Amino acid sequence: MGMYMDVHHGMTGITGDQLRAAHEADLAVEKEENVHFEKAWADPATGTVYCLSTGPSAEAVQRVHERAGHTADEIHEVPLTV
Amino acid sequence: MGMYMDVHHGMTGITGDQLRAAHEADLAVEKEENVHFEKAWADPATGTVYCLSTGPSAEAVQRVHERAGHTADEIHEVPLTV
Repeated sequence: MGMYMDVHHGMTGITGDQLRAAHEADLAVEKEENVHFEKAWADPATGTVYCLSTGPSAEAVQRVHERAGHTADEIHEVPLTV
Repeated sequence: MGMYMDVHHGMTGITGDQLRAAHEADLAVEKEENVHFEKAWADPATGTVYCLSTGPSAEAVQRVHERAGHTADEIHEVPLTV
């Protein structure tokens, strides 16, 4: 299992309710891929969303986001944390 | 006070010890700016580092990183969290 930080662009103006709904859509399907989305942070001004997850691979993380309707623009494995 | 996600590029091959040393350099000077660096995650493969902090402004966050010797490439205020 690894830890992943993924990034979504183009979400300018996203609201707290929209972020929560997107996160819940991930949680609803993540078990199929053995992924867990831990946290997400959004910058509505530039439309950037960061999601932190654990899972077996970046591809598995992306499949969850795809099924939830919001493909990530970048996914980085982040094996180092402090 | 806001929450900020900043991004550093060009850190390819960063080690756990280097990430820890960089984070400790931030912690050593952050109080001058009323900033606190909470967490950092690194992807050594693409050389990307994400730092999560709280502070009064993106400029204050950047001044801490500058004094610690590692200017951020992007700083996003992230008022929405889930």
